[in-house]
Amino acid sequence: MQRIKSNKLRKNKKTYKQNGTITSAWALQKPIFASKGNLSSLLSNEHLEKLKSTKHRCKLFSSLEMQALARIEASLLRGARKYFDANDFTEIVVPHLTRATGACENIATMFTVDHFKENCYLAQTGQLYLEVLTPFLKKVWCIGPSFRAEPSVDERHLTEFTLIELEFDGSLAKLMQHIENVIDSMVQEVLRTRQEDIELLGTDKQRINVLPPFKKVTYTEAVQKLSSYGVKWGDDLKSVHEKILVEIYGNQPLFITHYPKAIKFFNMKTNEHNPNIVNSADLILPFSGEAVGAAEREYQYEPLLKRLEESNMLKQLIENGGSIHDFDWYLEFYKLHEGTPHAGCGIGLNRVTQYVLGSNDIRASTVFPMNKQTLM
Amino acid sequence: MQRIKSNKLRKNKKTYKQNGTITSAWALQKPIFASKGNLSSLLSNEHLEKLKSTKHRCKLFSSLEMQALARIEASLLRGARKYFDANDFTEIVVPHLTRATGACENIATMFTVDHFKENCYLAQTGQLYLEVLTPFLKKVWCIGPSFRAEPSVDERHLTEFTLIELEFDGSLAKLMQHIENVIDSMVQEVLRTRQEDIELLGTDKQRINVLPPFKKVTYTEAVQKLSSYGVKWGDDLKSVHEKILVEIYGNQPLFITHYPKAIKFFNMKTNEHNPNIVNSADLILPFSGEAVGAAEREYQYEPLLKRLEESNMLKQLIENGGSIHDFDWYLEFYKLHEGTPHAGCGIGLNRVTQYVLGSNDIRASTVFPMNKQTLM
Repeated sequence: MQRIKSNKLRKNKKTYKQNGTITSAWALQKPIFASKGNLSSLLSNEHLEKLKSTKHRCKLFSSLEMQALARIEASLLRGARKYFDANDFTEIVVPHLTRATGACENIATMFTVDHFKENCYLAQTGQLYLEVLTPFLKKVWCIGPSFRAEPSVDERHLTEFTLIELEFDGSLAKLMQHIENVIDSMVQEVLRTRQEDIELLGTDKQRINVLPPFKKVTYTEAVQKLSSYGVKWGDDLKSVHEKILVEIYGNQPLFITHYPKAIKFFNMKTNEHNPNIVNSADLILPFSGEAVGAAEREYQYEPLLKRLEESNMLKQLIENGGSIHDFDWYLEFYKLHEGTPHAGCGIGLNRVTQYVLGSNDIRASTVFPMNKQTLM
Repeated sequence: MQRIKSNKLRKNKKTYKQNGTITSAWALQKPIFASKGNLSSLLSNEHLEKLKSTKHRCKLFSSLEMQALARIEASLLRGARKYFDANDFTEIVVPHLTRATGACENIATMFTVDHFKENCYLAQTGQLYLEVLTPFLKKVWCIGPSFRAEPSVDERHLTEFTLIELEFDGSLAKLMQHIENVIDSMVQEVLRTRQEDIELLGTDKQRINVLPPFKKVTYTEAVQKLSSYGVKWGDDLKSVHEKILVEIYGNQPLFITHYPKAIKFFNMKTNEHNPNIVNSADLILPFSGEAVGAAEREYQYEPLLKRLEESNMLKQLIENGGSIHDFDWYLEFYKLHEGTPHAGCGIGLNRVTQYVLGSNDIRASTVFPMNKQTLM
């Protein structure tokens, strides 16, 4: 078995280098993952194939597969909420019409809205809005659409998807526990209540019944593992690299921690021992890749201002005709209050669904998969 | 007591007529409602007054009042979800970037988004998206932001607010039961879990502890009650009229049923005995006014097409440069499937909060109250 896996990996690596594009290696993920577990259902799961179709999506609603998908999506949401309710997190309704403070990183992927003859943005994250409540409410969460003006029509991109976010007064270690427990609560809710539905869709129950703690690897270790794929320290990891890592670490959820500061969101907390890395963690899931982005946050005015001023995001914002004044309310808050240590994350619902279903296509894991072509 | 109430009413009526504007009568609501219950807390509730401020909202987050509001908002959401979970409703994630199929009624209040160099809208309702799943999943619900390009900056308008919607395979009578039970579940969750918070904010527990069934009056009866205010059959009821009715019927939640077809959403089901009215119900709450819009739906292709073609909404859409093709997917669905009897509603979270807190200002009942001026 070990030998088969490493053969597959070598094949993947070779093809990746030959073609020189990520897409070709991406296409190879299917046989890589099929090498483990429920072969027949992964190679020819016509139930999941059916759910990929976005042309006349309404025609699919009468299918048993779509109904099963809808119930699974709902049970994943219920599982997440059960964890928040049981652990005293307060739900916050955050704004979705925002200034650049609703951006994740890339201003270019923000939708602009005609807001009474001026432009505003559609939020990609409620993070900063949760952050300013964390000193007082201690544990908060929110759920809602995250919008991305992403023109790609493919198996990885949606223009809106559901993001579950939490923020609390704790450290990265505790944050990873919360994430593990939320994902576990989501998966266990599906396993407990949607047995028929996951059987219909060919889900291997054993594959997703992975109890916390999840495996963890630092970014630096990950880059070493990927050195033969041309990945160098400081590079962002592409989805194909994440998939290779997941394969190396046993096809299970995998945290990659402590990314380079330069490639991450401006307010991720600088590591106390190494100023080039941040106290962050991405959770990579089999099939879907990065499903959770998480970090401790800076909480003092001076470092926050400095990091924001140096950030790529601000550069982009200014090129886009905006300015740092979008962040006035946020900066004023940290000027006014001392701020307290806190950390948080965003969990992409549809990528968790993809992992649960074992699907290579996010459209097969989403009841209304919205992209440039599917607007309805 | 009865005499005091009717005196207050007469005073209200008189002032309304003297000034001839709705605003002036609206301003009278405070004394009207203060005539019942916890007088001191209603007349000078500095806790609620504080929460109305939207300038530098972040400065309020450290206040105990804001923290209490956030926890109350969260518990209302939890109460609603408990009802849906306990009654086998499946949660659906509906799109928020939509064509005109995301409109409530008034195309002019839709925000437009630059959707890859073409315009799309921000959804006001997920109703039609829920409807096409109802024949298969039977009981569905959704929650999310409802967007209104409403330039008014006042105590009644927000540019985005949380809408809780349900749709199921039943009748208006059963629908009103669901609504009563959802509201009751929300209120009971607050009473059960947020006792300290509602005490801090001066909420009269007895006032909101109204057990179902709620009072019901037909639109036609309501218009008779309002005839001395110049209201004629066929007129839409304004918020001031709703408040007067609530007062007449004992300052409790009040359903107004069977509105004229001409002033309601195109797919509300025509009454089987009277073709001029629809099987609809609006729930009016003390303090906030219309908090729920509900109706049985047309579910057959021919009447749906005819009603849509005759609708004000389509007229507006065409004036706006749009066309009936926005509804293609929806009409095709009903052409393809027979359709089944169903009904549903939208519950405005923040208006329920307003009722619970006894506040005349929606901004005091919303953690992030978004309007033209409060964008952050």
